[in-house]
Order: sequence, then structure tokens, then C-alpha cells
Amino acid sequence: MSINVGVFGATGYTGLELIGILENHPGVEILFATSESSAGKSLRELSPRAPDLFLISSAEAPFDQIDCAFLCLPHTRSAPIAAKALEQGVKVIDLSADLRIDDPAVYEQWYKVAHPNPELLPVPYVIPELSERENLKNAPCIANPGCYATAALLGILPLAIEGLFLPDTPIIVDAKSGVSGAGKTPKVHTLFCEVHGNFYPYAIGRAHRHISEIEQEMVRAGLEAGRLIFSPHLLPTDRGIIATVYAQISDMEAALEAFDGQFAGEPLVHLLPEGELASLAHVTRTPLAVISLTPVTGSLLIVSVAIDNLLKGASSQAVQNFNLMFGLDETLGLLPFQGGVA
Amino acid sequence: MSINVGVFGATGYTGLELIGILENHPGVEILFATSESSAGKSLRELSPRAPDLFLISSAEAPFDQIDCAFLCLPHTRSAPIAAKALEQGVKVIDLSADLRIDDPAVYEQWYKVAHPNPELLPVPYVIPELSERENLKNAPCIANPGCYATAALLGILPLAIEGLFLPDTPIIVDAKSGVSGAGKTPKVHTLFCEVHGNFYPYAIGRAHRHISEIEQEMVRAGLEAGRLIFSPHLLPTDRGIIATVYAQISDMEAALEAFDGQFAGEPLVHLLPEGELASLAHVTRTPLAVISLTPVTGSLLIVSVAIDNLLKGASSQAVQNFNLMFGLDETLGLLPFQGGVA
Amino acid sequence: MSINVGVFGATGYTGLELIGILENHPGVEILFATSESSAGKSLRELSPRAPDLFLISSAEAPFDQIDCAFLCLPHTRSAPIAAKALEQGVKVIDLSADLRIDDPAVYEQWYKVAHPNPELLPVPYVIPELSERENLKNAPCIANPGCYATAALLGILPLAIEGLFLPDTPIIVDAKSGVSGAGKTPKVHTLFCEVHGNFYPYAIGRAHRHISEIEQEMVRAGLEAGRLIFSPHLLPTDRGIIATVYAQISDMEAALEAFDGQFAGEPLVHLLPEGELASLAHVTRTPLAVISLTPVTGSLLIVSVAIDNLLKGASSQAVQNFNLMFGLDETLGLLPFQGGVA
Amino acid sequence: MSINVGVFGATGYTGLELIGILENHPGVEILFATSESSAGKSLRELSPRAPDLFLISSAEAPFDQIDCAFLCLPHTRSAPIAAKALEQGVKVIDLSADLRIDDPAVYEQWYKVAHPNPELLPVPYVIPELSERENLKNAPCIANPGCYATAALLGILPLAIEGLFLPDTPIIVDAKSGVSGAGKTPKVHTLFCEVHGNFYPYAIGRAHRHISEIEQEMVRAGLEAGRLIFSPHLLPTDRGIIATVYAQISDMEAALEAFDGQFAGEPLVHLLPEGELASLAHVTRTPLAVISLTPVTGSLLIVSVAIDNLLKGASSQAVQNFNLMFGLDETLGLLPFQGGVA
Repeated sequence: MSINVGVFGATGYTGLELIGILENHPGVEILFATSESSAGKSLRELSPRAPDLFLISSAEAPFDQIDCAFLCLPHTRSAPIAAKALEQGVKVIDLSADLRIDDPAVYEQWYKVAHPNPELLPVPYVIPELSERENLKNAPCIANPGCYATAALLGILPLAIEGLFLPDTPIIVDAKSGVSGAGKTPKVHTLFCEVHGNFYPYAIGRAHRHISEIEQEMVRAGLEAGRLIFSPHLLPTDRGIIATVYAQISDMEAALEAFDGQFAGEPLVHLLPEGELASLAHVTRTPLAVISLTPVTGSLLIVSVAIDNLLKGASSQAVQNFNLMFGLDETLGLLPFQGGVA
Repeated sequence: MSINVGVFGATGYTGLELIGILENHPGVEILFATSESSAGKSLRELSPRAPDLFLISSAEAPFDQIDCAFLCLPHTRSAPIAAKALEQGVKVIDLSADLRIDDPAVYEQWYKVAHPNPELLPVPYVIPELSERENLKNAPCIANPGCYATAALLGILPLAIEGLFLPDTPIIVDAKSGVSGAGKTPKVHTLFCEVHGNFYPYAIGRAHRHISEIEQEMVRAGLEAGRLIFSPHLLPTDRGIIATVYAQISDMEAALEAFDGQFAGEPLVHLLPEGELASLAHVTRTPLAVISLTPVTGSLLIVSVAIDNLLKGASSQAVQNFNLMFGLDETLGLLPFQGGVA
Repeated sequence: MSINVGVFGATGYTGLELIGILENHPGVEILFATSESSAGKSLRELSPRAPDLFLISSAEAPFDQIDCAFLCLPHTRSAPIAAKALEQGVKVIDLSADLRIDDPAVYEQWYKVAHPNPELLPVPYVIPELSERENLKNAPCIANPGCYATAALLGILPLAIEGLFLPDTPIIVDAKSGVSGAGKTPKVHTLFCEVHGNFYPYAIGRAHRHISEIEQEMVRAGLEAGRLIFSPHLLPTDRGIIATVYAQISDMEAALEAFDGQFAGEPLVHLLPEGELASLAHVTRTPLAVISLTPVTGSLLIVSVAIDNLLKGASSQAVQNFNLMFGLDETLGLLPFQGGVA
Repeated sequence: MSINVGVFGATGYTGLELIGILENHPGVEILFATSESSAGKSLRELSPRAPDLFLISSAEAPFDQIDCAFLCLPHTRSAPIAAKALEQGVKVIDLSADLRIDDPAVYEQWYKVAHPNPELLPVPYVIPELSERENLKNAPCIANPGCYATAALLGILPLAIEGLFLPDTPIIVDAKSGVSGAGKTPKVHTLFCEVHGNFYPYAIGRAHRHISEIEQEMVRAGLEAGRLIFSPHLLPTDRGIIATVYAQISDMEAALEAFDGQFAGEPLVHLLPEGELASLAHVTRTPLAVISLTPVTGSLLIVSVAIDNLLKGASSQAVQNFNLMFGLDETLGLLPFQGGVA
């Protein structure tokens, strides 16, 4: 018996990846996929490897036929659809930023717009490997973390939970992302000719919106707000994130154990053996996060986290969360990985 | 004493390259540069290596202050500016398609729009190495060839002029271009993520607009229309064209001599020695065309032509034409090459 | 019950892809993998996503434990291993060039070395979609075609079989391949810095070794030798081939029907609908060939064939052949595709 | 009157760039170029845009005909040639690591080999914009800094000189380099297929050899050794370095002034206006360093430094040093830039 789902916003990079995973998921049937700009077309017209799915506008979406809605929509457009789905008893996995921030005032501060549906907040914000999974079964709604946030938190939280950061030190995350993180809407700065041979920092320091969700979770784990220094850079490749975390810590041995304790046995988060370093080659086109630990001095640890921004940073993590929500095996449809639509 | 010029359409890839060349041209002063969408800004805001040129709208352009207008505008928007310039005694180098086709009916057939200024036609269409240069001195207006057309004609015309093509054989040009040929206006298909790792043919056979100008020149050289088979492909790189020409010919020795006769001594068109093959590495970021000849059978010759689509295929060829028009040394400002803005 | 296999030459790009496919193949167990240079290491040390397979030298290979040997070895090193395997009753899928050419004299002409095991010849040369599959069941040995040859023959043979080529016309294949086709042995010309931003023809005309196998099959289908013009080019991407075939034919309608007749219903060869053109994006990291047909004039047809050179051009086609040889479903282990090691 | 020079090690990426610059330098004549592996060939056989320079082995080098030797040799092979040149009164610009470290014991510690010519040490280590230029005129020998070191020191030294780093804080340099930094000797990890779509850290923490020269200069400027945390990453592009420096400082205003004071008026080091961030697009194929400053909190400043690793990180800086050594204008042959051979 399949769980019936609808995918809202199927034509972006995240939506395409999600469709690719769900098509091969043995417990799922995709009942519809939406696109405002391409309603009436087949998804295959937009992407040569996508399935031949007829696209409808979100206004036409038959909520009564689905058990779960995946929302791959821009922020501010996602929360209203979530509200509509939840009203009708449809569960929601929201891949947008709309439901990630508990406090609508913080949302407004970072997104420069009033939260469209503050009544929905708070919603569980779930990186499964850093969450209490048992609480998620039967959750009506999950906020799927951002790509940079997933990478950063996988590197920071194991240390934060154990209280290992030295007080009053900055927590520096130098992050590098492939271009698909910027989406499929055409802009000059994501044109091939602008990116090829180029590389640069942007919104560095404390300017990028993902700081809001990363720091929310850091605070939840006991750290003070304001300590995160987050520097994104744009890589001349299509997909993948490397986050290089510079952590000043009180106890190196405990730090290494913290990662081991957090991630040992996890099928989708791999700690590399000492001496190996995480690379995009470990993770692109996979649902994995790969982490390496480099102790440098007694108190400085470098944590390198690699993920595919569209998968562990978005769509495959959404399917992990979906599986947890419906009581399925967390890696169902994800191992071995058979996406490959985007 | 400098020749005063204005550049219309300075913010596209062609315009930027042209500005870069003209800035270093010892006989030129750029009096203004235009952009409709970015008027009021400095060109440097749009491109980090561009000079700090204040952009005006074309409506504000002071034609009375310039000797020559370079038009890097979209087709249909270029010819009216050319007309206005010529009226005021300003010479014109038009890099658009507007003045390339002698017959406005042919223009309309390929560009699906009536020619905006048929009274300007015909205008000399000039690849200097294939033209009677002495006629150009004091020409009021020159049509600068398209990028694909430049590459194709450099490979075809030496054979055509000598009457070496076997009758009733197709003349096949399999061409491959970097992405900058598609311009700087954001479109989905030129996004980094769509091009990276990809490659494909488009508008192959007899569908691409450059067929009109290539065949016009082939006919002028004595060939029948309709014989050209032209297959463009999009390369995952920023710049450069390789045109691979398959020519069925009557006399191989005469064919090799035809190229030698046509291009020996040319500073900007290099024939490679036997056994070497043209590559993008020979030409990108240079004003050169590099050509290699591969006799295969007694009657089949492969001609490989490499150019930088933005330079020999557009802006540096425009400066060659400008130099000829004003009686300057043809390579002034081009050798050694000092562009590098785009 | 699994079929036990050994993979000879597991560390090259083709070997890695093959290992990735076989690991997920439900009817296969990989008993060993060989490497001369890396014997004693785990395959994972060489490639971060490869399984943790211990590598042995081919001299240590226990032929008595396997049912089938896959040979991903350089030419001249492959045939002797094939001979040894066949002697011991082990079936062979040879991905090298050694068993592709029926006539050892032709092999010597192209490979400039005497054939190491002429007694093995001829061996069935199998692109399944162009072969009599029923004859392959229980074949002891199959020669797996080259990557360029697979692409070229998929575009040429349907026309050749129907006798549709106009007499005395050249059959031109302008082919473009990603860099993995050149293998993993470090050479200057395959360094990142030499390829990035570059593109060029090489060994064009009648110089590339794959001409020998392509023409062998063209002749088998009734064409005269010597008509093929084959021009490979090196693309700045990691994988994928586009072969653009220029065919002068006697009957366009029959030509289109020939492709339909040949490939309709094939799960791994897709004919695109009219108006769509094959691209690398259709095929990379899939076992598919995608073909588009562009009639240009009454007698000139352009056939565009796209494959992944490491998959349909090597390892997934090897698994198709393996499946046929062992009477399994031809697409077992290939659909949905779960490789992704290389 | 020209200064006669010889280039040792002309065929690597650094050597090629240097040849390209020197060919266009109005005060220089290249008398010879060496290569051990390619002696007897023309440089053009190795690189399609290089001049037609006949290569000799270094043993044949006529030191008596030159005024200056540029050494683009591997470490341990460079110092003996430097010694030979200096003996004969020939000045030396050494681009290798051999003469960068004052203390041969430190050299041995990092390079795992005894210094071949400790009697030559110390030698001035010169980033001109951070050095006392007047002392260099008539210097017999200059050690040209490493590429990463140039980028890191441009970001660190202005703060160090003014004593602005907070005590006991790590000085973190997260650096990203294009592949040409790894040289032209073929290795698996620099093959196109290994780098395309990939990105990763390597030798992070305190493991990379350039730490030795960076810390030597940091100590010279008053900082304690051991504070540098240096994390190189390999970018999927051919050239360029971005070094992102995380500096914890005592006085933000003084810090911004320190950069202004250090670099105002420098023709080859540009400080970007507030709000703009350094990118590879600012610097690739130019002799420039471009620096941006991002104050984050009262005590945390991010300094982003962009250079072309082959130019400001090697060959154009070598020519700056050469010009200073011979009393020429420092930017002679560099502005406008006309390299472009590599």
C-alpha cells in the first residue's frame, strides 16, 4: 500500500531531485506535481531525464487525494500551502525556509518580510541524525533544514551538545557551495560564463540568511547566539557543499568521541578514518554526509563536512524525514541511491 | 590625435570585450558607452575588470562628438542607431546581424521580422582576410560578421574562390561554440548547472540564422545556395569556436595551396603546419583564427577552424575593420593583445 | 543463486563503473578484483565511493572460483587473460580492443602490434540492440565494443542494414567525447588545466583505431570499407559522447522507419520524438543511448547519438552482454540504474 | 639596451607564464630557456601559444651571456643552479622554495631533505608591496614567495605590522586554489576527471609547506610562531587563489587603516571599496592582488585576498622583483598585461 504524495514546486533543482527519489521509492506514489509557470506541460519537457509527469498549478492541487505534501517552494509561498494542507489533514514536509524559524520576528528580521503564517510555528526542524527520531513518527509537519545549515550543524552540534566549545571564541564556518544552491531561476550571476573559472565569497560574516536557523539550533544546544561566523563561497561546480568548521574546544579527545558517539552506525552520515579528508567526490549524487576531523593544536579542531546540497542538503533529507514521519525505515528509497533526474 | 568612438551596448560579452580592446588602442578614445538597462551606472559595477565608464542610454548619445559608432546591440535595435549615426556623418561598425544580409527579404525570412532600415543595405560584409581591404578605407559603414559565420567562411571560402568543391556535394560544417555566444541575458539553458557536464547539438541542418550570411558569401564566391549543412553544438566552456568543415573537393593539392595563398603572411590568421590540429587553446583570449588542414582521402579534406567567438568572431574583428576603415594598421591595438575585460 | 565473477583491471574508470554496477546486480557476486599497480590495497583507497574490495594481482586470480571474467585491461594484456579463462571454462566479457577485430592482420595494422592470441578470433562483437541476441546465450566469450564505436554504429547500422546509404558518398561521423575516454593513467593532455576551457579535434579523418571495428561492422552490414570519415574531438567534461552522423541516403521515409524498426521497444536505446535533439544530459550516468533524427534535405539525414562512454560505451553494455550470455533479463542490474562509483 | 635573461624550467605552468611576460617586456631579451625533459624541442611544441623558443638542458646554459637567471625549478634542483649563477655574477630570481627559508633546519623540517646550498641563505624574500623596495636595487638574488604565501601574507601582514592581532587567538587562513598550483607533472589527482565536479581540503591545519614561509614572515613582523592555521582546498578551475583570513583584532578602525596605509597607491594591489568582495574574476590572467575587508563583529575582520597563483603568486611577482632589482619601473612589462601564453 502506497503513501500518496504531491510535490509542490517540481521544476526547480530541489523539486526535480525529489521527484527522482520518490519515483523509485517503493512506498510512495506521486499523485501530482505542481508548477505555476509550467502548469499544463510535462515535467520531461523541462528536464530530459525527468518522468513524464503532467504539471498542474498549485491552485488545482487535490489535497484530498494525498497523505503528504512536499513543498519545494520559495519562502513566503510555501507556508500558505502548508497551512492549507494541514487543515485538510495532509502531512507536510516543507523544504522552504518558512517553517524553520520558531520565532516569526526572527524570520522577519532575516527575510525582510512578515511571516505569512505565524500560527503554524514552531515546527520540528529535523536533521534526523541530530534529532530525537521517535518524536517524529506521526508529526503532522516537519521543517526541512537548509543546505548550508545541514552541513554547518553536522559539524557544530556534536561539539555543542557536549559543551566542548571554549567560551568566548568565534565558531567559524567557511563554506563552499556548488551553483545549484542558487536555484534554477535565471540570473546573470549564475550564468555559465560568470561562474566558469570563477570563485568568490558572498554574504560573509553574519549576513547570510541560513545564520538564523543555524544559530537557532546552536542556541537550542546550549551555545550563545552571535558566535557564529559563516562565510559562504560559490564554487564553479554544479552541486555539493564543503563546510570547513574551525572549532576552538576544551578537550580534543572528548571532541573526537562526541562525533563518534553522535554518528556511529548512522547509514547516511559517515565519519572518515583519521587522515582522510571529506571531498565532494564522496557525496555528490548521494544522500550521504561525509565528515572528517582534523585536530590541529590541542584546542583547535577542523571539522570538514561534505554533502550534496540538493540531496542531504534538501531532497534526500526530506525523504528521510518523510520516512520517519510515516514510520518507515529511514533510508527507504535512499539506499542504494537511484535518483539522477536532475 | 585620437579617433573618438562610442560603444552602443557595452554591457554584453561582446561589448565588454570591445571596450577592453579599445581602452588599450593607441588611436582611440572612448567618448561614451551605452546601456539601456544600466544607464547611470559605471560599467565596473557590472563587470569587475571593466574600466570605470559611466553608462548612458542610447537616446542620450552625443553623436556629434564621435567619429565612429560601434554597435553591439541586438538585431532590429542596431540598424536604427546605424541610420542615425550615418545621417550625422558618423561611421559605423555594426556587430549585430542587421546589416549583414544584402537582401531585406532574406533577412525577414531568417529573423522573422521586417528589416528595420532596408534603405541602408547593402553594406560591406567584412572578414578582412577574405576581402578587398583597399575598398574599405573611408567606407562609412561595415557589417561585422557573426561568430559562427567567421569560422565557417574562413574554412570554406578559400576553396570556393578557387572553384574546388565537387559539384552536388553537401558542404558540412560541424561547429562547436562556447556559451558566451548565447549572450549575457539570463536564460535557463545558459545557467551554469545546465551547461556543466553537458554538450548538445541545436538548430542543426539548415535551421541556424547564420546560414543566411554564410550562404550569401558562398554564393558571392560562386557556389550554389542550399549546399551548406551547418550543425552548431554548445560546448561546456565560456568561449571559443571550433568549426570542422568536411569538404569534398576536386584537387587536394590545389586545395592546400588555396589556403596557403589566401592566408600566407596574415598576422591574425595562422595556418598550422601539417600534422597539427587547431584547438581552442590556440585562440581563446586572442584575436587569432587558427586553421588546420587534414587531407583524408583524395577528395575529402577536413578543415578545422578555431577562433575566439568574442574576438575574431566579434570584437577584435570589429577593430580590424575599424582600423581598415580609418586607414590605420589593421592590427593596431590587437597585437600584442591586451583585452581581458570580459 | 549468484553468478560468481572476477573483474580484471578494476581501478580504471571503466573498471570502477563496472564494479559499481555489479555490486548492485542481484544475480552477481564479485569474487575478486585485480590491479597490477594496486594489488594489496582496497579499491576504496583509490576511489572514495568504491566498495571496500581487496585488490589482487591478475597472477593470483582464482579462475576456478568464477563463472565469468570481466576484462577491463589494456589491449594486448587482455587477450592472454581471456585465453587463460576460457581454457578453464570461465566465460569472458572482454572490454578491451583485443577481441573486437575478426582478422588479426587488421588488428596489427591499427594497433601496431601482433595480436597476442589470434587463436581466439573471431569472437561475437555485440551491441545487443544491433545483434541476434538469441545466439549469445551460452556464448563463451563476447567482445564488448568501444565507446566511439557503439555511438557510431547505433547511428549507422540501421541505415546500412536497410541499404539506404547513397553509393559513393562518405559516411561522416563527427564525434565528441568526455575525457574519461582517455583513461586514468596520468598524461599531460588529460590534466585538468589542459582540458578546462579547451576543446579540439584529434586523430580525425581515418586515423583513430575505432575505425577498424566500426568499418568491420559496416562491412558486415553490406557497406564498402573506406567510406567512413571519423573525427573525434575532446570535450571539456568528464563523461559522455555525442556522435553526429551525416548520412546521404536514398529514401528519407525509409530511413526514419529503419531507426524505428531497429529500436522500438528497446529499454536502453531511446529514439527522441521529432524536434528534440540528443544531449549528454539525457545519458550521463545512465546505461542509455539516446538518438535523434534530423532530416535536412531530401537526401541528407543527421543522426545524433548520445551515450555515456563509460556505461553504454563500456561497462553497462558489458553487463547487458553478460546478462544475455547467462540467460538473464538483459537489463537486470541496470534499470533503475544504481552505479555511481566512478 | 636590453637585460639578457635565461629562464630555467620553462615548460611548467609558471615557466610558461614567465616566458609570456618576458617576451613582451620592453627591457628584456630572453637568451635561452631550459628544460631537462624537452631539451632539443621548441617550447611551442609543448604549448600552442608559446613562442618558438629552442629549449636547452640546464647543463648547456651559457651563464656568461645573461644578466639574470629566473629559476622555475623544483625545490632542491633550484638552489644549485642559483649558486652557479651567482658565482658567475649573474643575478637570480628564484621562484622555487629553495631560498625562501632563512634557516636551513626549518627548510629540512618542512621539505624532508637537507638544504642543497645553505651557504646561500638568507636571501631577501620579497612581496614588493610588503617590503623595503629601495634595498632591493642591486640585490644579487631574490627569493620569490609561494602562491599561497603571497595571498596569505597580503592579508595578514598589514595587521601584524601594526600589532593588531588579539593575543592568543588563532590566525585562520582558509585558502582555495586552482589546479595549476599543483604543477604540470601528470598525477592522478590533477587529471580532469578527478577535479571536474570535485572540491576538497588537503593538508589542512598545520601541514602544508607554505606554513614555513608564511610564519617566517609573520614572526619577522612580530607575531609568535604557531598561531597560523592554514587550510588549502583544491578548486575545480585552472588558476587563481582566494585566501579568506579570519583575524581577531584589537581595533577595527586601525585595522582598516592598516590596509589602506599599506596598499594605497599600489598599482598591483587593489583594495575594494566597502561592500564589494574579492573574486577570482578580478584577478585571473592579471598581475593584480585584489583585497576586500569585511568587518563582522567589533573584533573579527575577514580579509579576502584574490590573486592569480601563476602571476602575482609566481611569475608576475617575479618580474616585479626583477624590475626592482634592476632599477626599472616596478610594473614595466606588467601593465597593461600581455601574457597569455599559458
